[in-house]
Amino acid sequence: MTTSIRRTWLPFLGEDVPERCDTPAKVAAFELELGCRALGVPAPALETDPGMGEGYAIRGADGNATVAGGETGLLYGAYAYLTAKAAKKPLPEGAQKPFWPLRMINCWDNADGSIERGYSGRSLWFEAGRLCWDGPRVRQLGRMLASAGLNVLCINNVNVKGQAELLIEDYLPELARLAAEFRPFGVRLMVSIDFSRPLAHGVGTADPLHEGVQHWWADRADAVWQAVPDLAGFLVKADSEHRPGPFTYGRTHAEGANMLARAVAPHGGVLVWRAFVYNCQQDWRDTVTDRPKAAYDTYAPLDGQFDDNVILQVKYGPFDFQVREPVSPTLYAMPNTRLALEVQLAQEYTGHQIDIYAMNPLWRELAEQLDPGTVRAVAAVSNLGRDDNYTGHPFAAANLYGFGRFAWNPWVEPIEALRDWARLSYALPAAQEDALVGMLLSSREVYEKYTAPLGLCWMVRPHDHYGPSPSGYEYDLWGTYHRASRDAVGIDRTRRGTGYAGQYPEAIRDMYENLDTCPDNLKLFFHRLRYDYVMADGRTLIQRIYDDHFEGCAGAEAMADALATLQLPEPDRAEAAERMQLQIRNAREWRDVVNTFFHRLSGVDDAHGRKIYD
Amino acid sequence: MTTSIRRTWLPFLGEDVPERCDTPAKVAAFELELGCRALGVPAPALETDPGMGEGYAIRGADGNATVAGGETGLLYGAYAYLTAKAAKKPLPEGAQKPFWPLRMINCWDNADGSIERGYSGRSLWFEAGRLCWDGPRVRQLGRMLASAGLNVLCINNVNVKGQAELLIEDYLPELARLAAEFRPFGVRLMVSIDFSRPLAHGVGTADPLHEGVQHWWADRADAVWQAVPDLAGFLVKADSEHRPGPFTYGRTHAEGANMLARAVAPHGGVLVWRAFVYNCQQDWRDTVTDRPKAAYDTYAPLDGQFDDNVILQVKYGPFDFQVREPVSPTLYAMPNTRLALEVQLAQEYTGHQIDIYAMNPLWRELAEQLDPGTVRAVAAVSNLGRDDNYTGHPFAAANLYGFGRFAWNPWVEPIEALRDWARLSYALPAAQEDALVGMLLSSREVYEKYTAPLGLCWMVRPHDHYGPSPSGYEYDLWGTYHRASRDAVGIDRTRRGTGYAGQYPEAIRDMYENLDTCPDNLKLFFHRLRYDYVMADGRTLIQRIYDDHFEGCAGAEAMADALATLQLPEPDRAEAAERMQLQIRNAREWRDVVNTFFHRLSGVDDAHGRKIYD
Repeated sequence: MTTSIRRTWLPFLGEDVPERCDTPAKVAAFELELGCRALGVPAPALETDPGMGEGYAIRGADGNATVAGGETGLLYGAYAYLTAKAAKKPLPEGAQKPFWPLRMINCWDNADGSIERGYSGRSLWFEAGRLCWDGPRVRQLGRMLASAGLNVLCINNVNVKGQAELLIEDYLPELARLAAEFRPFGVRLMVSIDFSRPLAHGVGTADPLHEGVQHWWADRADAVWQAVPDLAGFLVKADSEHRPGPFTYGRTHAEGANMLARAVAPHGGVLVWRAFVYNCQQDWRDTVTDRPKAAYDTYAPLDGQFDDNVILQVKYGPFDFQVREPVSPTLYAMPNTRLALEVQLAQEYTGHQIDIYAMNPLWRELAEQLDPGTVRAVAAVSNLGRDDNYTGHPFAAANLYGFGRFAWNPWVEPIEALRDWARLSYALPAAQEDALVGMLLSSREVYEKYTAPLGLCWMVRPHDHYGPSPSGYEYDLWGTYHRASRDAVGIDRTRRGTGYAGQYPEAIRDMYENLDTCPDNLKLFFHRLRYDYVMADGRTLIQRIYDDHFEGCAGAEAMADALATLQLPEPDRAEAAERMQLQIRNAREWRDVVNTFFHRLSGVDDAHGRKIYD
Repeated sequence: MTTSIRRTWLPFLGEDVPERCDTPAKVAAFELELGCRALGVPAPALETDPGMGEGYAIRGADGNATVAGGETGLLYGAYAYLTAKAAKKPLPEGAQKPFWPLRMINCWDNADGSIERGYSGRSLWFEAGRLCWDGPRVRQLGRMLASAGLNVLCINNVNVKGQAELLIEDYLPELARLAAEFRPFGVRLMVSIDFSRPLAHGVGTADPLHEGVQHWWADRADAVWQAVPDLAGFLVKADSEHRPGPFTYGRTHAEGANMLARAVAPHGGVLVWRAFVYNCQQDWRDTVTDRPKAAYDTYAPLDGQFDDNVILQVKYGPFDFQVREPVSPTLYAMPNTRLALEVQLAQEYTGHQIDIYAMNPLWRELAEQLDPGTVRAVAAVSNLGRDDNYTGHPFAAANLYGFGRFAWNPWVEPIEALRDWARLSYALPAAQEDALVGMLLSSREVYEKYTAPLGLCWMVRPHDHYGPSPSGYEYDLWGTYHRASRDAVGIDRTRRGTGYAGQYPEAIRDMYENLDTCPDNLKLFFHRLRYDYVMADGRTLIQRIYDDHFEGCAGAEAMADALATLQLPEPDRAEAAERMQLQIRNAREWRDVVNTFFHRLSGVDDAHGRKIYD
């Protein structure tokens, strides 16, 4: 039995999947054999039904069960069988299939081995400008992705730089080898590309309406799909944070995306186009421009103009993965466009995989607010890296697993996804499992309370985005202002202010614009409020800020106490304990800095006499 | 005639000093011959008088003049003769000698070729971990240093890292060659060393009281001075901003410095020890610790304990080259210690050699406040780099030249030093020369007005230190807080506050502690004041802040107008014009950010209705 590779939530699969398992069916058979033996349960029969695609059904009782499924459905069924047995849960009943056909992980890995916003070590497949990897570690990841039901892995940063440009050129043989590692796990690769790449090859322009450019991309796509026939597609970040794009040539993003889409269409590829466009050179004096409005303003007018194999990938909120944002209005505004919902497992703004922050509660809220049918795919920025445990904090694996559950069923109960992950990973006594699940379930609220208040956003330290800096972005170019004064704080985004709220359907707009119906946790996103504004529960805004920060920090301290009682296996216990010390320090820093910041501004003391530093 | 090398303030010396000029006397003769020919004046005779050392005297009238001087005095006399003729000024009368025997430039060059806080391009003598240089360019620098009367050049960063460690080891042959380049210009090299270096050589400790450590350094000094017999000494930054030092071993800085001093003493070397020690991990909640107190607390008790060849180098202010600081109390507190006054030509906090900032007015103030006799040497952090003009902004050369003038005569009138530089450099028509000198003379006040107000310090953007960030350091670890609230701003550093003022001699302490006698431009350094505090001229503090910032920005705009009228030679004109656009932008940004910051806090409108952004 190999023990050098961490098995995360699949501890009962104690051997590597061997290389001879080169199809999903072979992996399914191997895993069932290995897993059932380890769990001491009878192995079910496998029955391929190509018509079922990614779907599966588990029929019959123990000792006489059959897992039926399509090529990859069989694989998902096998993991469903094993994880149900390991978690001591009933087998899923009836035909199962994923809600979204594309369930994507976007890695922001650079060719030099670094990872943009990576908190789990270096890249699993890049180093020193080359593609290279440890086969068993990568195949264990394939197993993790398959068991979570994820099926697309974009391997390189959307900010394509350095030798990552060569992925669709000189590095195609290595890309094909990596694709072969993941293919048995039902995972197709995707590659981020540079919109301006034809320029480096003497085309002289990257104008999407230029014939030479179109030919260059068509030829390139031919070569790429010849090397990797099942490549899922290309991912593009264009005209965003200094990336090149069609605006350079006076073209729309539909024209830019469609040109690329037509190059990949003959091969069955999709073209994923990120809708993360805004003015990152804003003058802070400008109170008219409002960054959250940017994506809608750019894309909503283009609804219906994108080709069928274009997927417009929209971040769930209008800013950038802040702790609390409303759902992006762009997601309501483009019924005739294939949209992907983008979330972020990498805890860029949510604690760097130091602080515990379980995301299923957030995603469930999105599902409730959005009607998941309005989007056609889901993508998550990766939290993976070369750390032994793959995700930095061992509990951050819950977000990878939980994302897979969400991608299969947007309405999955957060408690169910998190309990399954906890039980699979640790098999703790019931009370401890409850404590762990409770900690995870509350972690987002705890983190939200000790960081920026009530949807205010961007009080993080610039650049690295960990820890408080209440005015760190206040006079900067990024369009991220709170304009806190001695009397009031926040941006009025109603019709009396920037008009952002008007980008929503009428009922949602009215809900946000009306202070009585706007949720408390978004009040400072949509409104500029005086510190003496009285909330529904009778507390003033300033008192609510103080209360939240004291409560949030106390919540983190309570999590630390709870964590100390858990009999986690090593090294997870030590890793979690070490990070918890840092989280406590971070929570106290946030509490004190934010409270002091608002106390200095408002001059209002805490009603309960708790310590606020001068 | 060589034209590829910029001659800065010596345009009439149109040829390189040839390599055959390998002594100061030969350089003096060459320069006089070359310069007098170019200027069309008769060349004086040269007369060596070894007893005069660095001193010189110019005797006799034109056509029959003699320059007499010691070995390097002859050189200084030759340049004095030439520059007087070029500037059409009377020759200096009587015996001349420098006020300070050590007139040092400290380069913060790294072995990789980068320069810490460098704004003039890459290092002139490091690249890719090696010592290497362009001989003619380095000898032109030697000429500049000699003509400014400077005599020591420390070539590497006080933060010794990477292959800079090898300067006193493997790189001694190259170091000797570089020393030979500068020797004919009367410039001796100095090297920054790493206090912990014996550890890398298996000594097992760097404890200064350990015999093995003492032997290691003595042996090293033997080898170093064998290679460079006239090396000026070693420079050390210890126990400062994470640098190693004697505190690790429970030893005082006197014990650390003396150990090294004894290693270099047999060779006539000095040991320069920087007194830049403070807690760079302060908790912002801590209102008792006050960073400006740190150097005095560390060093004053050690007065009299340093060996004779130790020079304790003290920054002029207690913080770190802020735009306005009081003189460091350490400089008054150590009568029995050889002190060096450290200033900074590199415009780290004063505009990055983008904004115009002439420093002679500052240095003159230091001379007036300090009594220059209390210090024994003077050192300036370099503003030099590989840019064609050596100093980034062509006018920044005035600070290098002016520093030399200050080092020879601390009471030199700023207008005299700046006018001489301007006349030597450009020979403009009188009205334009007046305009240029006026611009330089006022530049510090202009810069001070549009940046942080009244001695407040540290409102710069963290890390890069260019542009405003009023709260950028407010909750950080660096001990640099203003604690601005809705009512008041500043730290009380009187006996009622942190007690910092008590580190000064009684009369100075009283002057600073008394609000009526504390200079306006330091009021917020020493006092915490309400925005409605009324200044001597009847203005409130908040109105003074607004006025200064509007006036400072208007001053920069007036400088731009004045600059446009000057018929400067190219490329100086273009370089200055390009930078002026950036300076104007910077000044406006400072004005608006600082005014908005205080307007948001105080709620007080400008009395004159000028635009303050919300």
